[in-house]
Amino acid sequence: MKKVRMGMVGGGEGAFIGAVHRHALALDGQIELVCGAFSRDPDNNQRTGDSLGLDAQRVYSSWQALLVAEAALAPQDRMEVLIIVTPNHLHVPISIAAIEAGFHVFCEKPAAVSLEQAIELKSRVDKSNKLYGLAHTYLGYPMVWQAQNMVAEGLLGDIRKVYVEYPQGWLSANEESHNKQASWRTDPSQAGGSGCMGDIGTHAFGLVEFVLQQNVTSLCADLNTHIDGRRLDDDGAAFLRTEKGASGVLIASQVCAGVENGLKIKVYGDKGGIEWEQMSPNSLVYRPVGQPYQVLRAGLGQPGLCTEALNRCRTPGGHPEGYLEAMANLYVDFAAAVRKELAGKAPGVPGIDSGLRGMAFIEAMLSSSSSDTKWHPVPHND
Amino acid sequence: MKKVRMGMVGGGEGAFIGAVHRHALALDGQIELVCGAFSRDPDNNQRTGDSLGLDAQRVYSSWQALLVAEAALAPQDRMEVLIIVTPNHLHVPISIAAIEAGFHVFCEKPAAVSLEQAIELKSRVDKSNKLYGLAHTYLGYPMVWQAQNMVAEGLLGDIRKVYVEYPQGWLSANEESHNKQASWRTDPSQAGGSGCMGDIGTHAFGLVEFVLQQNVTSLCADLNTHIDGRRLDDDGAAFLRTEKGASGVLIASQVCAGVENGLKIKVYGDKGGIEWEQMSPNSLVYRPVGQPYQVLRAGLGQPGLCTEALNRCRTPGGHPEGYLEAMANLYVDFAAAVRKELAGKAPGVPGIDSGLRGMAFIEAMLSSSSSDTKWHPVPHND
Amino acid sequence: MKKVRMGMVGGGEGAFIGAVHRHALALDGQIELVCGAFSRDPDNNQRTGDSLGLDAQRVYSSWQALLVAEAALAPQDRMEVLIIVTPNHLHVPISIAAIEAGFHVFCEKPAAVSLEQAIELKSRVDKSNKLYGLAHTYLGYPMVWQAQNMVAEGLLGDIRKVYVEYPQGWLSANEESHNKQASWRTDPSQAGGSGCMGDIGTHAFGLVEFVLQQNVTSLCADLNTHIDGRRLDDDGAAFLRTEKGASGVLIASQVCAGVENGLKIKVYGDKGGIEWEQMSPNSLVYRPVGQPYQVLRAGLGQPGLCTEALNRCRTPGGHPEGYLEAMANLYVDFAAAVRKELAGKAPGVPGIDSGLRGMAFIEAMLSSSSSDTKWHPVPHND
Amino acid sequence: MKKVRMGMVGGGEGAFIGAVHRHALALDGQIELVCGAFSRDPDNNQRTGDSLGLDAQRVYSSWQALLVAEAALAPQDRMEVLIIVTPNHLHVPISIAAIEAGFHVFCEKPAAVSLEQAIELKSRVDKSNKLYGLAHTYLGYPMVWQAQNMVAEGLLGDIRKVYVEYPQGWLSANEESHNKQASWRTDPSQAGGSGCMGDIGTHAFGLVEFVLQQNVTSLCADLNTHIDGRRLDDDGAAFLRTEKGASGVLIASQVCAGVENGLKIKVYGDKGGIEWEQMSPNSLVYRPVGQPYQVLRAGLGQPGLCTEALNRCRTPGGHPEGYLEAMANLYVDFAAAVRKELAGKAPGVPGIDSGLRGMAFIEAMLSSSSSDTKWHPVPHND
Repeated sequence: MKKVRMGMVGGGEGAFIGAVHRHALALDGQIELVCGAFSRDPDNNQRTGDSLGLDAQRVYSSWQALLVAEAALAPQDRMEVLIIVTPNHLHVPISIAAIEAGFHVFCEKPAAVSLEQAIELKSRVDKSNKLYGLAHTYLGYPMVWQAQNMVAEGLLGDIRKVYVEYPQGWLSANEESHNKQASWRTDPSQAGGSGCMGDIGTHAFGLVEFVLQQNVTSLCADLNTHIDGRRLDDDGAAFLRTEKGASGVLIASQVCAGVENGLKIKVYGDKGGIEWEQMSPNSLVYRPVGQPYQVLRAGLGQPGLCTEALNRCRTPGGHPEGYLEAMANLYVDFAAAVRKELAGKAPGVPGIDSGLRGMAFIEAMLSSSSSDTKWHPVPHND
Repeated sequence: MKKVRMGMVGGGEGAFIGAVHRHALALDGQIELVCGAFSRDPDNNQRTGDSLGLDAQRVYSSWQALLVAEAALAPQDRMEVLIIVTPNHLHVPISIAAIEAGFHVFCEKPAAVSLEQAIELKSRVDKSNKLYGLAHTYLGYPMVWQAQNMVAEGLLGDIRKVYVEYPQGWLSANEESHNKQASWRTDPSQAGGSGCMGDIGTHAFGLVEFVLQQNVTSLCADLNTHIDGRRLDDDGAAFLRTEKGASGVLIASQVCAGVENGLKIKVYGDKGGIEWEQMSPNSLVYRPVGQPYQVLRAGLGQPGLCTEALNRCRTPGGHPEGYLEAMANLYVDFAAAVRKELAGKAPGVPGIDSGLRGMAFIEAMLSSSSSDTKWHPVPHND
Repeated sequence: MKKVRMGMVGGGEGAFIGAVHRHALALDGQIELVCGAFSRDPDNNQRTGDSLGLDAQRVYSSWQALLVAEAALAPQDRMEVLIIVTPNHLHVPISIAAIEAGFHVFCEKPAAVSLEQAIELKSRVDKSNKLYGLAHTYLGYPMVWQAQNMVAEGLLGDIRKVYVEYPQGWLSANEESHNKQASWRTDPSQAGGSGCMGDIGTHAFGLVEFVLQQNVTSLCADLNTHIDGRRLDDDGAAFLRTEKGASGVLIASQVCAGVENGLKIKVYGDKGGIEWEQMSPNSLVYRPVGQPYQVLRAGLGQPGLCTEALNRCRTPGGHPEGYLEAMANLYVDFAAAVRKELAGKAPGVPGIDSGLRGMAFIEAMLSSSSSDTKWHPVPHND
Repeated sequence: MKKVRMGMVGGGEGAFIGAVHRHALALDGQIELVCGAFSRDPDNNQRTGDSLGLDAQRVYSSWQALLVAEAALAPQDRMEVLIIVTPNHLHVPISIAAIEAGFHVFCEKPAAVSLEQAIELKSRVDKSNKLYGLAHTYLGYPMVWQAQNMVAEGLLGDIRKVYVEYPQGWLSANEESHNKQASWRTDPSQAGGSGCMGDIGTHAFGLVEFVLQQNVTSLCADLNTHIDGRRLDDDGAAFLRTEKGASGVLIASQVCAGVENGLKIKVYGDKGGIEWEQMSPNSLVYRPVGQPYQVLRAGLGQPGLCTEALNRCRTPGGHPEGYLEAMANLYVDFAAAVRKELAGKAPGVPGIDSGLRGMAFIEAMLSSSSSDTKWHPVPHND
């Protein structure tokens, strides 16, 4: 199997998510990082490239330079996929430029900083023969696929309730006392119109729609900003309604002091319920009505797992896999689609449609939160 | 120490909460059950009295008969406190009659079936020299007092967020397939205007106001009924605002298939957070900012506990106490107030003011849920 | 139902287990404490009696005085059962005297301070028409009965392994810095020949034989004393062999700093395993081979429970019951046997045979630990 | 940073641990797999090499061929490190041959199939200028280093007790119904003289000596074989004594039906205790005497962690890392030592001395288990 060649924009020293992507793409030995434009700071850029063992000639001073230079290389050498891990406002401009230059794109979420921008990107992806993948990492976990499968198989019956919560505590203090991460994520010009909802609310929302395989059609939101001078929401909640009549509650907050990364989903139908927590990702609680509850466990050979879950495990039960493995699952699927020369969407990987849903969610949250009226639609764009 | 003499209305065979009260009052050996009117069914009434070893003459055919007959007994013999564990709609009529007849009242929640009714009851209690206690059982847990204490001591700093959830699954199926409990709790003429919110939402709400020692001033609610033909809400959620500016989310549902009794509260301020779950009641998670999280544990001699928590423990750490002990803590405090001949409110026991808050909550939930406008006040009655 | 009348020897102020027994006997309203000899200190004795609301005439200065005086009362008034919660060395003398005086005995464990003494007691019990019960509290938990039932039903297949551990930390410091409890439990003249093994090792051992319904036939022990000047073991472990060929490990220690009361049993057969922890007593993990693991939960109406477990629950699932309820289950069964005028052993309550097994265990542990040879028999006395 | 070039012997399709090593070495992008002899089955060998994207010329038919051919390549191209993931009996012959041929060795555990063999290997390593690393994966976990650090810093005071348990259930059924893994691991000619103790007991033992930084000096063992016809132990336990006077219990079993991979260590001293479980590897419970217990959590920036733990984390708290990351930590350290041209032992990686300790442990277990005498020394070879 030939390794797929990827390049990266963003992710210099001090960035969190760039390193995550590099671990994830490397884990299964199917992808090679061949080039990058990691930082606008030339020293940082160069140091990052060196530490990755890259050919110095393929460490570029800007993403524009990268696209031009890589496009000029021989087909068997040049980057096939561009990974975008910059601040949010650059996601769409770089995605479009990369696609136009003939490269597949794998982009950190959110896909865009507005719904309008996301729609524009979707039209470019649709017209191209390129793949677009979105790093909704949590959708790479085996037990999230297992949850989706159990809902789809009807084990829970008709879905009545979905609860999703995503508490974090790292923005409890103000930006001055903080790191680079906090600073751009709370700057509207880089993060887009939402802070917490754009950063983690979209994960929670995407998880709901993924597990239920239903659209959320309307919501009622309450957003808050708890730190003086902070310009974007750092906390909020919403009631949800889905297309098949389930109701739900979504909570996302970055001021839950002391909480690490507590993404959790619970789904209840008339035949049973399931519960999953990202910080214990290898367990899925299943509550069939009238029986003791069960705990399904991730791992090769584990009983009760669907194919989609088993295919996303590397080790037998009891050898914990985690966040990097979840993202690596997205990379493996993306690389497979590259090898098969697919276009548009890589099976198993969230695509531009997920990106649109995320932006529709954020816009509905912002409009609902600033309104006195309860329910606001989450428009569906096809 | 002389035992306090109590009588009971309701709680015949097949009722859940009557037996709970009887276990709770007996646990500490400070209270004697001397009489009762347990059921309108004479056989059930008699069997219940027999099984409790009561003098057959003090097993009365109705609460009216009980009040008349007990009032006629010599002071050293007659019942001092009437425990009310009937369906909700009888709580106020019996409470008023008992107080007028010269008895203290300890009533299962909710205090009333409307705010108006609760206000009337409060005025009667205030004018009497009798005690009124409300069985908000969860406020008898040591670690709930510990949580209140830590908030009051400022360990969490300014409170920003409160989340309370109370999922249950036992009303997932319809009433026909169900027991006596389900049937009256979903009948508006017996339960009052709300099902789930009256039954368990009030517990969640009361827990928030107890731990924060702040009033919730407004809310935005979404109530649902998931079973065809059910006449009251069985599920819902609300956004909350408190008097000192915290925001929150309250969830209560009785259709979370497979969930037992999952009351949980989480509070976050700028200095830390705390988390408590009723199904693991002896642990309180404390997350001070910038330090590893701690788990405070109930039990005599356990480190880090306040006096209010320690006083509500009977055994050293590691000997689990639970729900019956929590309610017994309310009974111990109520009996102490009886012995001290206090009036109005027994220290340590929720009183009629808690009852009013519960009714104000329910009415705000119902009015908000049926409105298109977001925020509705939770009026405060003094 | 008439209340069973009980009296108590030991359990004055400052004692731990006396109060536990009093809560437990009171919980279900079926038993009345009518007399006691709580302490050799007259003030303590009197204060304890007063606080319990006892008739001052039935608070006796010694257990001998109690037996004489109660035997002289009219049958309908006098104590029926004597509860013994003194230091260990008095258990047998008082038990024998009580039985001879015509009273049933319910005794805190261990039954005796030597196997010889226990055999003597057994012969007295067998010859009398009285009941003898032993407070192996942990055998009152519903899920321990559920575990026994699942083993007996063959759900685990042939039992291969049993692990039992009972770590505590409260004897980590030396006796000087300690309370009354520590002091007599580490004094050979009061506690008997073993400290930790007599105090908690017997619980662990009894739990193994109860759940497996098999005798342990031989063991290999290692006992330790970690504190300078302490005269009895405070820690130890043993390999076990059972009559049907299972092997096991028993751990008991009172120097596991910071651990509360961590009794835990795990049993594995060729068809599955079960796991139970006293500090989370309402859950039983069941691991059927080739299926996801299940968690059976205590509570009225909970799925998958056997009659023996359901009968020992008072509340629906999710309303935690604990240690006091476990002991109360023993009292309920003992009172039922008193009412039925049974002799020897109360169904559902550990009896003198359990006492013998405990003493045989302690003697085998002591003899094995002081020997260079591995395996020592645990003799079975019928 | 230049990638370190590694080759692999063993690890063809159907093998578990070879794939684990490949994920682990790839994760951090610092190592390149350049060649291999994966299977004696030519088809398997070739398919494995293909799937890894290896140059077909560097997929060798045998480890002998690999050593010869790689040694003949130019220094800048040839393999630097040989990874050995064959059945146990080949570990030493291949290790010695590789070292003689001028390659570093990174070997799956156990190092050898006898103590004698391990001593011979050690003498070869010591005489060479090559590195030898042993894949005690669990010693790569951040919180295991944290545990070691807390013991070394004296936070627990003098260590009194250590408990280590390693239950698994996968050998509950017999080999016929099993996979390739079960078959060679229970074959004395491939696995060595011990089954369970060699396979997982050594992990448990190594963890004890690593965390305590003390040698176990003697033990008393009980080994069992539960399946008819199985030729090696599949279960056992031991009492332990350490050089500084702590005592302990080690449990390892592969017949705990339904258990996945439950390695767990608990250490108690006079000032506190710590507890760690491999299946929840990012938490370390710390029980300081007289204070609430704390939970230290792995992750960049997490409070309370030592440098050794922080250096082994890749992501902020709440993004679970697991087993592959633990092994990757060993590979990162091994690669660093290769780059620095160190010999003998790579800092941070278990070396041949750990291998000797493992073999000494197995031999002591076997000799103790077959003896009637209790204590047997675990000889220390320097």
